[in-house]
Amino acid sequence: MLVLGLDPGLASTGWALIEGKRGRVGLIDAGVWSTSSDQDQGRRLLSLWESFGELVASQRPEAVSLERLYFGRNVSTAMAVSQARGVLVCAAARAGLELHEYTPNEVKQAVTGSGSAPKPQVAKLVRLLLGDRVPLRPDDISDACAVGICHHQAAGLRWALAAGARR
Amino acid sequence: MLVLGLDPGLASTGWALIEGKRGRVGLIDAGVWSTSSDQDQGRRLLSLWESFGELVASQRPEAVSLERLYFGRNVSTAMAVSQARGVLVCAAARAGLELHEYTPNEVKQAVTGSGSAPKPQVAKLVRLLLGDRVPLRPDDISDACAVGICHHQAAGLRWALAAGARR
Repeated sequence: MLVLGLDPGLASTGWALIEGKRGRVGLIDAGVWSTSSDQDQGRRLLSLWESFGELVASQRPEAVSLERLYFGRNVSTAMAVSQARGVLVCAAARAGLELHEYTPNEVKQAVTGSGSAPKPQVAKLVRLLLGDRVPLRPDDISDACAVGICHHQAAGLRWALAAGARR
Repeated sequence: MLVLGLDPGLASTGWALIEGKRGRVGLIDAGVWSTSSDQDQGRRLLSLWESFGELVASQRPEAVSLERLYFGRNVSTAMAVSQARGVLVCAAARAGLELHEYTPNEVKQAVTGSGSAPKPQVAKLVRLLLGDRVPLRPDDISDACAVGICHHQAAGLRWALAAGARR
C-alpha cells in the first residue's frame, strides 16, 4: 500500500510517499510544497491544491495520513495552518482517497515506541526506518514521513487483528 | 458589480449575492450551504467546494468578500472554520475571482456607521438596506449580506477617490 503522509502549512507543506510491504516501510519520495508570502492567500492555497493534484495523479497513493487538528500555542498560525489543511483534506476527498488522522502522540508512539518522545528523536528514528534519503531539514518532511509510517503501523495492526479474528 | 459575500463555516456557510448600482445595493439571492456532522470532514469540505463552484458558474459574481480571520474565543471552532474558509478562498482563486477581506469592525462600520454596533443592530440594518427577503435566521445569511455590502461601500469609496484624483 502506498500512503501519502502530509504535514500541512501555508508557507510549507511537507509530503512523503511511504510504501509498506510485509511489515516493512520504505520511502518512495518526499519533499516540500512552498508558497511565497509575496502572493495573496488565495493564490498560495491554490498552489497547494495544484501540487497535491499533480502528485496524486502521477503517484496514485491509496491513502492520505495526517495529524489531527490540535490546539497550537499560536492561534494565528494555527488558523493559517487550518486553511491549508482544509484545502488538502478537500483535495483528498475529491480524489477519492481514504483519509486517516492521528494525534501527535499516536505518531510519536508509532515511530519511537513512546508517545512523549521529543521531536529530534522522532526525526532520528524516521531516518533509521527509511534511510538517509530523508533530509534533516526542513522538519516538515520528517514529520510527513512520521505520520505516513504511523498509518502503515495502524493499518498493519488492524489487518493483524482482523486476520486473528478470522482464525 | 455583483459581489458574493460569504460567512464560512463547516456546518453552515452563509452566502449572499449583492448587486450594486449607482451607490445603492440590492439582494439578488442568499442562502446557506449546510453539511452534516454525520459525514467525514473531507466529504463536508468537498460539498462546500462543489456548492461554491455551482453558484459561481450559474451567477458569475465578479468578486468575493469575506471577513478576515480573527481570533475566536473557541480555538477548536476557529480551526474548523478556518478549514472551511481555506477551501472557499482556494475555490475563489481557482475561479479567478477577486478576493476582498474586511475586519469585523469594518463590516459593522459599513452597515451601521459604527464599528462597535451589536450584532442584532447589524442584522436590522441589513434588512433595512436589502429588504425583508433577508431571513432573520440563521445569522450566517445576514452576516454574508453585511460583508457583501461592506465591499460595495469600500469599492465605491475607492472609485470616488480615484475619480477625485483624476480631476
